[in-house]
Amino acid sequence: MLPDQTGSNALTTPALLLDEARMMRNITRLAKRAEDLGVSLRPHMKTAKSTEIARRVTGAVPGPITVSTLAEVEVFHAAGHADILYAVGIAPQKLARVKALRERRCDLVVILDSAVQARAVVAAGVPALIEIDSDGHRGGLVPGDPALVGIGRILHAGGCLRGVMTHAGESYTVRGTAAHADFADRERGAAVTAAEALRAAGLPCPVVSVGSTPTAHAARDLTGVTELRAGVYMFFDLVMAGIGVCTLDDIALSVLTTVIGHQSAKGWVMVDAGWMALSRDRGTAAQDVDQGYGLVCDAQGRVVPDLIVSSANQEHGILSLRPGAAGRLPDLPVGTPLRILPNHACATAAQYSAYNVIPSTPGAPLRIWPRFGGW
Amino acid sequence: MLPDQTGSNALTTPALLLDEARMMRNITRLAKRAEDLGVSLRPHMKTAKSTEIARRVTGAVPGPITVSTLAEVEVFHAAGHADILYAVGIAPQKLARVKALRERRCDLVVILDSAVQARAVVAAGVPALIEIDSDGHRGGLVPGDPALVGIGRILHAGGCLRGVMTHAGESYTVRGTAAHADFADRERGAAVTAAEALRAAGLPCPVVSVGSTPTAHAARDLTGVTELRAGVYMFFDLVMAGIGVCTLDDIALSVLTTVIGHQSAKGWVMVDAGWMALSRDRGTAAQDVDQGYGLVCDAQGRVVPDLIVSSANQEHGILSLRPGAAGRLPDLPVGTPLRILPNHACATAAQYSAYNVIPSTPGAPLRIWPRFGGW
Repeated sequence: MLPDQTGSNALTTPALLLDEARMMRNITRLAKRAEDLGVSLRPHMKTAKSTEIARRVTGAVPGPITVSTLAEVEVFHAAGHADILYAVGIAPQKLARVKALRERRCDLVVILDSAVQARAVVAAGVPALIEIDSDGHRGGLVPGDPALVGIGRILHAGGCLRGVMTHAGESYTVRGTAAHADFADRERGAAVTAAEALRAAGLPCPVVSVGSTPTAHAARDLTGVTELRAGVYMFFDLVMAGIGVCTLDDIALSVLTTVIGHQSAKGWVMVDAGWMALSRDRGTAAQDVDQGYGLVCDAQGRVVPDLIVSSANQEHGILSLRPGAAGRLPDLPVGTPLRILPNHACATAAQYSAYNVIPSTPGAPLRIWPRFGGW
Repeated sequence: MLPDQTGSNALTTPALLLDEARMMRNITRLAKRAEDLGVSLRPHMKTAKSTEIARRVTGAVPGPITVSTLAEVEVFHAAGHADILYAVGIAPQKLARVKALRERRCDLVVILDSAVQARAVVAAGVPALIEIDSDGHRGGLVPGDPALVGIGRILHAGGCLRGVMTHAGESYTVRGTAAHADFADRERGAAVTAAEALRAAGLPCPVVSVGSTPTAHAARDLTGVTELRAGVYMFFDLVMAGIGVCTLDDIALSVLTTVIGHQSAKGWVMVDAGWMALSRDRGTAAQDVDQGYGLVCDAQGRVVPDLIVSSANQEHGILSLRPGAAGRLPDLPVGTPLRILPNHACATAAQYSAYNVIPSTPGAPLRIWPRFGGW
């Protein structure tokens, strides 16, 4: 339940809302899966970027995490997380900062896929995972690449070889558990094959790290894998609902907005959440159901059937019924508060400096959890 | 010229760069136009969100500005700007905050297009402009709408009628000075017609405000208009270049990035600027030349022919030659710094908390100007 939005305690809209009960349910769901699969979980904090949320994901003792920026390393390390994977191919220019963090007792590990990077991390004394390409999505070596063992040797000679990692980003483009499980098999197959190639060459490969939100929720078997990574699952979003990883009722993040006008002849309702509030992400555009810039709910979070943000300017959203919808546009007078479910939680959350947290305890006041950005 | 990016003074990438000389040239260009057209200029600060830039736009004495959020009003008012138009239809819930700002000697004016909003602003004693729809783009009353005079009467009875305003957002969708000038005529025609309708009913209409970056640069005649608004012109971007308002050499904003890998068989170069660094804006997708997520330049800002950010993940950009390009992919080793020109300056700048300013004076050090966001 959202506190009253008509009084003086009303939030300034647009504002980012986080439903704590839904988030905790999502966190518990994947923690249970990892346990059942016999792997450790290294949650990716790139979506949340909040120490409050990291604490709820990894437990009372700050645990292992994955991050996407060195700014995240610095903030989460200051909050007690000392086992961190920076999962973006390392630029040599960043190694001085990485080294400084390691000297402050942060076991920060980087990733790479080239000999030039391997030589740079060895020179800096920074441990690394070799990135493996399991689906052609972006970086990494295919498991059979002859360069793999060479890079492994460079790292091992410098005492910097920690293992291998892969991420099946293409799993976001297919729908359903079976399809996601197939991508999970590809992640496992690629990472384990690469690990075995290193071991066959006499190199150690203690870490075999895989994951994405769709594959983590669908994997049938992770034999040979040591850890699982996923990030957006804490909040979920319309893209994840569109590919069947969650339901709309699992989406913990929404944007609170206010009706500011109408163009009745066009069937438009104007709100004060534009793309600055929602992000420019149109991740559902290529899915079976295009949700525009977001799906509209009432202030309590109940979906308004077929009402979407069909267009967005910087600070204006235009709501209309989705093409072909049978219903009628509801009466939404100026001043009506609404919530919008985001296409992509990572992109929408990034537009805000705080979460307004609807607590699990009914009737308890909203809490504010800071959120950070930057690099 | 960009300072050396190989030493210890290198910026952490991705980073937002602002070329001061180009920005000042863009600012001077539109100031001259407004002067020639005989109207005052009320620059829109929604793109820049920087007090340093506002000072350079409005001159030594902080002058009139337009904004898109109340957070902007608070920051710019604290920096001395006391004549501010908040150009997003007012939500009644925001009037307490507006009133508080007005009580601190800020002449803050809001916009609206309904009687319910007019009654709310009168109750709060806040002056308003009536929003006029000149091109069907989003909010506003068409000039002939019989509701116009009724709203004017409500405002005037409460001493809150300041005038009318319009914005031809559709001008972004057409190319060339003649087409933009036609939209400028529509802005002028709609705003002046509405002003005359109010005056014919015995109501005052001192302010007749129009503008968008394309129309401001193309308007042939602004008779009857009192002020001109525009925002993105300070920086320009690929969308503006694509519709012929500026050249690539006028774009003052870019994102500094570093090469972090290759997928040579695919013709891909991976960089550490993904959509978090560039924004998800794909504003050139519907233009004659689709620039992907941005056009690539070398570290000194010289365009690399036909090299674009063809795809983007959260923190990864994938560079490749645009489809059909005749040239060859240049050799860009890991660690190479590059710059990316953005599709949409408003969206890209919003991803950063500071500008790294390349000063007009050759050889002078980079300066850092803070940038803010939020609502």
